[in-house]
Amino acid sequence: MVVVMQEGAAEESIQNVINRLMGMGFDIHRSTGARQTVLGAVGAKVDFDTRDIELLEGVDEVLRITAPYKLASRHFRPEGTVVTVGRDVTIGGPEVVVMAGPCSVENAAQIDSIAASVAASGARILRGGAFKPRSSPYSFQGIGHHGLELLRQAADKHNLCAVSEVMDQTQIPMMLDYVDMLQVGARNMQNYNLLRELGKVAKPVLLKRGISATIEELLLSAEYIMAGGNYNVVLCERGIRTFDSYLRNTLDIAAIPVIQKLSHLPIVVDPSHGTGRRDKVAPMARAALAAGADGLLIEVHNDPDKALSDGAQSLFPERFEQLMKELRIIAPAVGRKV
Amino acid sequence: MVVVMQEGAAEESIQNVINRLMGMGFDIHRSTGARQTVLGAVGAKVDFDTRDIELLEGVDEVLRITAPYKLASRHFRPEGTVVTVGRDVTIGGPEVVVMAGPCSVENAAQIDSIAASVAASGARILRGGAFKPRSSPYSFQGIGHHGLELLRQAADKHNLCAVSEVMDQTQIPMMLDYVDMLQVGARNMQNYNLLRELGKVAKPVLLKRGISATIEELLLSAEYIMAGGNYNVVLCERGIRTFDSYLRNTLDIAAIPVIQKLSHLPIVVDPSHGTGRRDKVAPMARAALAAGADGLLIEVHNDPDKALSDGAQSLFPERFEQLMKELRIIAPAVGRKV
Amino acid sequence: MVVVMQEGAAEESIQNVINRLMGMGFDIHRSTGARQTVLGAVGAKVDFDTRDIELLEGVDEVLRITAPYKLASRHFRPEGTVVTVGRDVTIGGPEVVVMAGPCSVENAAQIDSIAASVAASGARILRGGAFKPRSSPYSFQGIGHHGLELLRQAADKHNLCAVSEVMDQTQIPMMLDYVDMLQVGARNMQNYNLLRELGKVAKPVLLKRGISATIEELLLSAEYIMAGGNYNVVLCERGIRTFDSYLRNTLDIAAIPVIQKLSHLPIVVDPSHGTGRRDKVAPMARAALAAGADGLLIEVHNDPDKALSDGAQSLFPERFEQLMKELRIIAPAVGRKV
Amino acid sequence: MVVVMQEGAAEESIQNVINRLMGMGFDIHRSTGARQTVLGAVGAKVDFDTRDIELLEGVDEVLRITAPYKLASRHFRPEGTVVTVGRDVTIGGPEVVVMAGPCSVENAAQIDSIAASVAASGARILRGGAFKPRSSPYSFQGIGHHGLELLRQAADKHNLCAVSEVMDQTQIPMMLDYVDMLQVGARNMQNYNLLRELGKVAKPVLLKRGISATIEELLLSAEYIMAGGNYNVVLCERGIRTFDSYLRNTLDIAAIPVIQKLSHLPIVVDPSHGTGRRDKVAPMARAALAAGADGLLIEVHNDPDKALSDGAQSLFPERFEQLMKELRIIAPAVGRKV
Repeated sequence: MVVVMQEGAAEESIQNVINRLMGMGFDIHRSTGARQTVLGAVGAKVDFDTRDIELLEGVDEVLRITAPYKLASRHFRPEGTVVTVGRDVTIGGPEVVVMAGPCSVENAAQIDSIAASVAASGARILRGGAFKPRSSPYSFQGIGHHGLELLRQAADKHNLCAVSEVMDQTQIPMMLDYVDMLQVGARNMQNYNLLRELGKVAKPVLLKRGISATIEELLLSAEYIMAGGNYNVVLCERGIRTFDSYLRNTLDIAAIPVIQKLSHLPIVVDPSHGTGRRDKVAPMARAALAAGADGLLIEVHNDPDKALSDGAQSLFPERFEQLMKELRIIAPAVGRKV
Repeated sequence: MVVVMQEGAAEESIQNVINRLMGMGFDIHRSTGARQTVLGAVGAKVDFDTRDIELLEGVDEVLRITAPYKLASRHFRPEGTVVTVGRDVTIGGPEVVVMAGPCSVENAAQIDSIAASVAASGARILRGGAFKPRSSPYSFQGIGHHGLELLRQAADKHNLCAVSEVMDQTQIPMMLDYVDMLQVGARNMQNYNLLRELGKVAKPVLLKRGISATIEELLLSAEYIMAGGNYNVVLCERGIRTFDSYLRNTLDIAAIPVIQKLSHLPIVVDPSHGTGRRDKVAPMARAALAAGADGLLIEVHNDPDKALSDGAQSLFPERFEQLMKELRIIAPAVGRKV
Repeated sequence: MVVVMQEGAAEESIQNVINRLMGMGFDIHRSTGARQTVLGAVGAKVDFDTRDIELLEGVDEVLRITAPYKLASRHFRPEGTVVTVGRDVTIGGPEVVVMAGPCSVENAAQIDSIAASVAASGARILRGGAFKPRSSPYSFQGIGHHGLELLRQAADKHNLCAVSEVMDQTQIPMMLDYVDMLQVGARNMQNYNLLRELGKVAKPVLLKRGISATIEELLLSAEYIMAGGNYNVVLCERGIRTFDSYLRNTLDIAAIPVIQKLSHLPIVVDPSHGTGRRDKVAPMARAALAAGADGLLIEVHNDPDKALSDGAQSLFPERFEQLMKELRIIAPAVGRKV
Repeated sequence: MVVVMQEGAAEESIQNVINRLMGMGFDIHRSTGARQTVLGAVGAKVDFDTRDIELLEGVDEVLRITAPYKLASRHFRPEGTVVTVGRDVTIGGPEVVVMAGPCSVENAAQIDSIAASVAASGARILRGGAFKPRSSPYSFQGIGHHGLELLRQAADKHNLCAVSEVMDQTQIPMMLDYVDMLQVGARNMQNYNLLRELGKVAKPVLLKRGISATIEELLLSAEYIMAGGNYNVVLCERGIRTFDSYLRNTLDIAAIPVIQKLSHLPIVVDPSHGTGRRDKVAPMARAALAAGADGLLIEVHNDPDKALSDGAQSLFPERFEQLMKELRIIAPAVGRKV
């Protein structure tokens, strides 16, 4: 922490701040300038509230100089983390991993048909929701437990891994029987009781960024999971809220290289939720790959017009197949393969 | 829903849209203009995705014309809702109800001292957290169950009601033994499993607006609770995220009259979390009252410098006493009393 | 500036940063901790780009420790500035000054009628646009020069001062013949050529905050005017853009006490543009006063339904009269009078 | 415009709204449902304020159904516009046009050296500022008129076109002698007096999106220029303001396909201002191309550490050369060439 004293702050105020900082466990470096005194407070502490100092007499400004996360920081593992999903899918390595499937698992025929086509096009992980967080209580809420069974069967049949969303901590034990990776939705990014329990799990977690979360907050949420011992966290950019209402969200493509600098965790992108419209998914999937994403999460439906949720953002299987071809052209520009 | 067709859209496209809308259960009113055809789709449906129509051939734009919430709407109870907390505190009536207390319950002496002083100054409800949602896993997370016992004792002793935050649905049964109103924090505003369970509870719920939630989303979250049968919901504005970083959040004072027009539910304001700094709490509390708020939620601590959480935004008891006097001057300007 | 080096940064990198900072004219204080080195760079410089240092080898983070503005800072005039408009209206003193009038001057009868009523209700300054910045080229753009003549006549007849918006620097000399204060609109807050010329003018400037400007950016724009020698700047909060679309803008009431801490310049509030709806103007005007504003800018029209611009946010004269009464109840709570 | 009446609105209120709409020049289509009446108001009018109707008795909601711009709309030229810059550079055709150069023209040697290298790497247009809008009055403000002479000389020598920023309408005639395209900066996107004058100019305009402007507002600003008769407008996405502070701005890559759907005007992207950091420019340039941008605007400096402005976001010539190679790999994925 750096504490900037006001110009002309009294020596008594400065001593008071120093005492307070030392009481909090910091070592103090004092720089007395011609006009202003600056105090550097260093130490191993990661949890403190800079506002406590900001309100003291004579203080002009307080700046935090260390990130509030440790385990999620790039410093912790400069070489980067490769997360293994299922037996042999690795996220964060040379291959850009494509996860595809419907928004919701609806029935056996639907999920099997979609799994077959996305597997044929090159996807490695099958996505599909069984429990759906919906902003209206009157919307379709997913088919529940049975959806997980169907997802698992389809994934096994077509040699795919499976990922699905967990909505609260009571669902974790049950879900572990069916999925290879547990997804935390954007609205749950700061559901700390859920994150804490996921820290005890032996399977990877796909953590989606909240729609108005900063990157620091995303990394702090990853820290909650890692602090419990589960280091297999895959981050997911899925669009933030901005002023333009044409699309549902604004996909923050620049978050990809920013996160790769700040953290060692892999970062994947969901252009389906990130745009909310089928015709914008392919351009944004290509953009994400070109910017260096470690993976993509794409909604595909065999009959989007009849989808029970988010059909508007689901690709037809043919468009998905075409997109995979476009991605294969781009991948060498970033030294990757799809 | 209103569907605006593109200029020159083919009759076949128009018929296709009409068929699709009728298939969704709507009655259609068609307006054929010189340049554009406009379709009005009316019916009792509240759950549909306008994007499904937006993507059809020939469609220019689709506009939702009914709010996606019903029970939370002002139409549902034009006269407004008065929520009774405990035996005799009413929110939404002529009295502006002040809820005060520490961010976290720390120990018996602390909560008793604060309860005594806020009761003396005119507060009616004692607030205090036992379970704290914190963005860092390394921050103080509350003293837990015992905090609820201490809160209840202090409230009873000083003739106050008690409110405290519930973090997930598994905590509800236990909390009902101790509090008169259950608080849902901003980060949990869209924790639907929690909201759904609160719909079955016989005590009022204080629902805080998420930091980037729209007012419509807040009312949809209230709808989740109400759809379960619990109509005693008090809404709380506690600051939204904007670009200015000087304060933690930007208190959206205008949300007070807007919500009062859109909904029948009472709306209270939390200027402590809404600003994050003690010296900004009183101006914003006065502003909230002057704009017509039904209540205030204010953090008060007997020794803020040593508070285990959010001391920086807690008022000293003396400043709280002074603030209550200022509020009593303002109240007649809005036809209320404090 | 404080430069935080990465953990384990090489001594060579540290020296390189020190040399670069010294080359920029800073004095350097070095704090070598067990894990990290922190460099404090102090000096009189106000113009530098922290990113130049941020990109150097071994640098973790760079923090600016001095505000980039000087003349607009509270330090420059701790006692606060009182701006005199016309002969005897003072903004920033004990009286909360109300400026009222139509969005646009339309004709002699209109502006005279409105001036008469707002003067009778207690307004001190008459507002009215002659040149209107409109987001559509097809909207009414104001009646121009003649509008200024009418505004001046009405102001003089009813013993009011006059304020009107200047849209570019070529209009300044002409406008000085008619107005007592020149208004810079939100869209022009960063029109630097205009601000620079206003620095040479002998009349006060009413500077509106841009809809997504930070407070620091607002103060930097004030600094442009002050750097030219004109210290009579009145700041105006008029709403910022946020995610909620119910109202045009979100009035940032908390900006009032924040600006009063950071700057010595008076701060007034425009609840008409800040909400865009007549029925929300009075609650927000009351809130602004209760939070400590030095003045209010309120649109009043004698026939809002026929107003050529922004009729929807204009008060009827009777409602304005009523609002003034409400404000007089509240003023003593903040030690002011209206 | 569609007017949704409240449930149970009185027939008198409905008639009143109809009369008002007809008085505004609209034809009315009335849909009387079981619960609600909906009025469709159609006509050629583009300028009206929906709030005027919103405030009438019995009105629930008012929705605009036509875009407020016409000339900038895709409907106006479904085939798309190709803008010719100078003699032979075309933006909006099969070639993705790269514009490169320093933030500011500093001296003859600098601009000549940069022009030589970017031309050799494949850029077609030379960028360089002579007048710089800076948020601080103490920052370098450009070398002025002489900078334009140097820019023109360097462009001619290396067979490039030239683009530079115009800060107000008084500069237009002078600038036309030196540049092939006039750039309007983000802060001036709503400087209507400037836009209006640019509508009379015979050279193309590069119009940058404001940092918190919606796409509709950007298109309305283009409409201002086009309404004056100059249809050669190139739109530029250069980053919007969001909550994350790691980068200066958030480049809204999805704006590319959105604008291509809504408008016929070409859209280019500026990843230098859009990120503010050199190491993020290449990923975002690649992403913009992969998403379908018609051109790129990239800052390149021969000695970024000594640049007088924005050195931190300027590429070294070698990195620019490398980036052009990466772009050539990606271009076929979108059916373009670089």
